[in-house]
Amino acid sequence: MIRQSRNIDAVLASLLVAFVLLLLGLLRPALAQEPLPSWNDTSAKTRIMEFVQRSVTEGGEGYVAPVDRIAVFDNDGTLWSEQPYYFQLGFVLDRVQRLAPQHPEWKEKEPYKSVLANDLAGVARNGEKELVDLGMATHAGMTTDEFNKIVTDWFATARHPKTGKPFDEMTFLPMRELLEYLRANGFRTFIVSGGGIEFMRPITEKAYGIPPEQVIGSTIRTEFALVGNVPVLRRLPAIDFIDDGPGKPVGINQFIGRRPVFVAGNSDGDYEMLRWVTGGKQHGFAMIIHHTDGEREYAYDRNSAFGRLDKALNEAERRNWLVVDMKADWKKVYAFEN
Amino acid sequence: MIRQSRNIDAVLASLLVAFVLLLLGLLRPALAQEPLPSWNDTSAKTRIMEFVQRSVTEGGEGYVAPVDRIAVFDNDGTLWSEQPYYFQLGFVLDRVQRLAPQHPEWKEKEPYKSVLANDLAGVARNGEKELVDLGMATHAGMTTDEFNKIVTDWFATARHPKTGKPFDEMTFLPMRELLEYLRANGFRTFIVSGGGIEFMRPITEKAYGIPPEQVIGSTIRTEFALVGNVPVLRRLPAIDFIDDGPGKPVGINQFIGRRPVFVAGNSDGDYEMLRWVTGGKQHGFAMIIHHTDGEREYAYDRNSAFGRLDKALNEAERRNWLVVDMKADWKKVYAFEN
Repeated sequence: MIRQSRNIDAVLASLLVAFVLLLLGLLRPALAQEPLPSWNDTSAKTRIMEFVQRSVTEGGEGYVAPVDRIAVFDNDGTLWSEQPYYFQLGFVLDRVQRLAPQHPEWKEKEPYKSVLANDLAGVARNGEKELVDLGMATHAGMTTDEFNKIVTDWFATARHPKTGKPFDEMTFLPMRELLEYLRANGFRTFIVSGGGIEFMRPITEKAYGIPPEQVIGSTIRTEFALVGNVPVLRRLPAIDFIDDGPGKPVGINQFIGRRPVFVAGNSDGDYEMLRWVTGGKQHGFAMIIHHTDGEREYAYDRNSAFGRLDKALNEAERRNWLVVDMKADWKKVYAFEN
Repeated sequence: MIRQSRNIDAVLASLLVAFVLLLLGLLRPALAQEPLPSWNDTSAKTRIMEFVQRSVTEGGEGYVAPVDRIAVFDNDGTLWSEQPYYFQLGFVLDRVQRLAPQHPEWKEKEPYKSVLANDLAGVARNGEKELVDLGMATHAGMTTDEFNKIVTDWFATARHPKTGKPFDEMTFLPMRELLEYLRANGFRTFIVSGGGIEFMRPITEKAYGIPPEQVIGSTIRTEFALVGNVPVLRRLPAIDFIDDGPGKPVGINQFIGRRPVFVAGNSDGDYEMLRWVTGGKQHGFAMIIHHTDGEREYAYDRNSAFGRLDKALNEAERRNWLVVDMKADWKKVYAFEN
């Protein structure tokens, strides 16, 4: 009898342990590591977490129903660096070098002449027509599948001039943690960028956990064609849509069809998006990434050729937009830092 | 001792019952009601289910990774009826009646004159310029929020001329079950329609379980503006994009950025989309809804003004596209049928 009851005890104990383990498994997300580990314990982190907690607290003020938990992020300067130039400009410069043998006339023709001489100032002195021409020469005339491969290959081989890292590693670790934190709380995260949609899509899933269908950007005209018997989409030398400035709310409405409740940007090109997200019924949360760290990244705002931040910074305080100070608020900028 | 062991037995029994109940709870999806209950047991249902099962069987031929499980659906004639006209045309006709008091000049001006006389044939005799004018008059000149309300109100009050039902109840129950079945197997379901994106978005979540961000359609130009201090998007009298025919693969690539593996359409306006989805590496599954049931719905194909089906039907067999025969393959067309 004693032996029987010890066996029974063993069985009961096993079941109890199993039950407790099951419970712990279910509770694991709640016991998980504290979110936003690369953010310093400043008011920026507090404000973000308070917003998210209010959003998920049913019955509370500031509750956001799951269907409305949409967060939009600028890319250049918000999720990854944009100096010494937008990375897509780096792609353009490299592509001109690659295509140059097929275009001997480029040696004497702007803006190609300046590009081939690595003279960025010379490139910038060109007019809009020449710069659009440059964009078309490097982005059009192939199918969407071919362009996807060209971009993928470029990201695999190109290196950032300051860090020597692949461009898709130049992402901000604190912002990647923010994306994960939002998603862990039921938010759907989108990119809304002035950059080319097909320049970003090959790498956003791996870099940010954002799938192609949640990437919104500038677009080139494409057309369907049957080549032999194979359906293709040809990229045409014509701009379709510029997803920047006042174009960002247009793009948000077109692609998402709902007003987001969270927005992160870093420059005046995000101003209208910041106004759009905070101007709706649910008074969304807005943050601006202010580049204040010349050591770990780049320090710039009002005088920058890329990512100029002026008006949005002026209005941030009275509009209650959070201004993130990269130097003060982030423990780390890039994942590859020591 | 006997009483103690009876208590222990009771506890063990309870735990066992709890364990079994837990197991059953976990197994419930697998023991769930058979999918596609409104489909007859014909080869159409079999082919659909075999495709989905192959898609989710890891290691098997035809396995589709979850990220690639994208299904696209035409709307008019595929998910809901499109007779006696596209429902959006019904919206246009009603809106002209509603706006007419503000436009006394419409009494003598085409196409408004024909619309006000309920003369559809007269409307159709107009040229493209007049019809575009009609579209702009009924779809532009208000903000996106205002238009959302106009459309929502119309769906709430308008009634189908044959059935007397709200237009958003004229959806095909077997197709709604198909959407649910695909989603239960990890597919993301999108609408890709020639209809207006903002005409569909107010009702697609309730009608189909498809959120606004997964609705792709034709678009009007919009622009951001600050009215007083309130950000708005104005709908402009200019077409932005027509998501029909060869435009459908363009729209798919733009909005989704991945090639779908499942496509359902019903007319030649879906031909290029059918070719696009089946012409990729994963040789997607295509189905055409053939309107064969003049009693329960409408019978039409090659000679229809709306949803003309000719070329796609001719090529379906040799391209291995499933042709669904509404009369033979569906137990019920509408949910409200007896």
